[in-house]
Amino acid sequence: MRTVYLNGDYVAEQDAKVSIFDRGFMFGDGIYEVTAVIDGQLIDFPGHMQRLRRSLGEIGMTMPLDEDGLARIHHHLIEDNALREGLVYLQVTRGTQDRNFLYPSTDTPQTLVLYTQAKAVIDSPLAKRGLTLISVPDLRWQRSDIKTTQLLYACMAKEMAKAEGADDAWLVRDGAVTEGSSNNAFIVTRDGAVVTRELSRALLPGITRGVLLDLIERDGLRLEERPFTLEEAYAAAEAFVTSSTSFVYPVVNLDGRAIGNGSPGPITQRLRQRYIDRVHDLIH
Amino acid sequence: MRTVYLNGDYVAEQDAKVSIFDRGFMFGDGIYEVTAVIDGQLIDFPGHMQRLRRSLGEIGMTMPLDEDGLARIHHHLIEDNALREGLVYLQVTRGTQDRNFLYPSTDTPQTLVLYTQAKAVIDSPLAKRGLTLISVPDLRWQRSDIKTTQLLYACMAKEMAKAEGADDAWLVRDGAVTEGSSNNAFIVTRDGAVVTRELSRALLPGITRGVLLDLIERDGLRLEERPFTLEEAYAAAEAFVTSSTSFVYPVVNLDGRAIGNGSPGPITQRLRQRYIDRVHDLIH
Repeated sequence: MRTVYLNGDYVAEQDAKVSIFDRGFMFGDGIYEVTAVIDGQLIDFPGHMQRLRRSLGEIGMTMPLDEDGLARIHHHLIEDNALREGLVYLQVTRGTQDRNFLYPSTDTPQTLVLYTQAKAVIDSPLAKRGLTLISVPDLRWQRSDIKTTQLLYACMAKEMAKAEGADDAWLVRDGAVTEGSSNNAFIVTRDGAVVTRELSRALLPGITRGVLLDLIERDGLRLEERPFTLEEAYAAAEAFVTSSTSFVYPVVNLDGRAIGNGSPGPITQRLRQRYIDRVHDLIH
Repeated sequence: MRTVYLNGDYVAEQDAKVSIFDRGFMFGDGIYEVTAVIDGQLIDFPGHMQRLRRSLGEIGMTMPLDEDGLARIHHHLIEDNALREGLVYLQVTRGTQDRNFLYPSTDTPQTLVLYTQAKAVIDSPLAKRGLTLISVPDLRWQRSDIKTTQLLYACMAKEMAKAEGADDAWLVRDGAVTEGSSNNAFIVTRDGAVVTRELSRALLPGITRGVLLDLIERDGLRLEERPFTLEEAYAAAEAFVTSSTSFVYPVVNLDGRAIGNGSPGPITQRLRQRYIDRVHDLIH
């Protein structure tokens, strides 16, 4: 049984409840972050807190506590739940009021929730076998750069993938891939360039994406930040996705078409290892 | 203090709480309905239940109870809270599970919440003075025909309106008005045609909208179901919005431009009265 943080208290997970009038429940009026934990340590915590502050600001909210205060809660939960590898989930909502689309007064207490989830991040079987994907139209709202809890379409996309026997989905808007349902999308062209879409309102500014761009350049690989089409992806030598709790996952099949030779590509595997090496450097 | 319905129990509103792991709270994975109450009676309840069933079906959910069971809860709350005029709000979510984008197994109990809100529907001051509106880009997801709780952008649109001293906002996509932030949008052209956008995935199939289309035709007015532009709206003789808990509200100003002579139009006022007459016929 996990200990969960809720509005100043550490409580048993089954006791962690919010009002039905919470705006997170009634309006999807909430922001979240997910930070990876390896060997009991937070990975790239400052980056996640910076993005949290930005997401909140984009919808007119402020940080519920300062970064040190949030770090203390993260560490408390990791210790209390003896978490070695996995993640800490954080969600902030605009608080509780009788239903009204207009925001409550600014002195209304926000709701702040954090909890841990155990997950095999480093020794993930998916990292070895690679993901099979489908593509689906990107029907999400046009501010996917804000990490809100309005995630129903991401859920629907993953369900559509599952129904077709695939692991996950890439989202396509105006002929180009925006991102994965919960990760950033990359291809490696046959002439060795790594391609990922440039940041905009159409996709989440992934923390892992940002770190990996540095590693790609340090590795001497050619990087192209631009939209790519499904046809380019089908013809790519390799493909992969990045996220905070998967790091780098190879993509081996898209819409029933093998990517490259249908197994995890060498550049993908090298970048995953570089990322893991960096994580080990951070925590040791 | 209101009595609220939550998963089989009638509880005091401050005791109505759901798990932080509820998918409504974490993913916006919920559907809602709002039914008007006049003289203690539900207005167009079967239409709302039909739309509820449709919305749920579109995201792979089923009705939490049959229509009779849901009607009993509505009536119980109206009586318990001595509600004469206002609304009953109903929300269904896919239930509670440890966080996972994939849907829980189908035997996971849904969350069902209902509560009442008092509101002056018939004698609304807004119906007399009319609404001032702004237009904003429609950035919502592309399934606005499904009544999900992913309402953050509707909230943001109303906040943008408030910041400019207006009452509400119309949403514009590809040059045409889709709908209001929480209502359907109509104009009356200078040659007397009533224009409202045809149903599609871009807008909610309003129950009041549907009823009003009948009243418009019975009134001998010319009806055109098609998209209209902001320029058409600026040049219109009249404009109005419809929703279940406002019925028909005149629009007197859009983006700082007076509509018609800047006061509620005669066709709008007649249609509102027709709607109220029909409601009185229903309940007496």
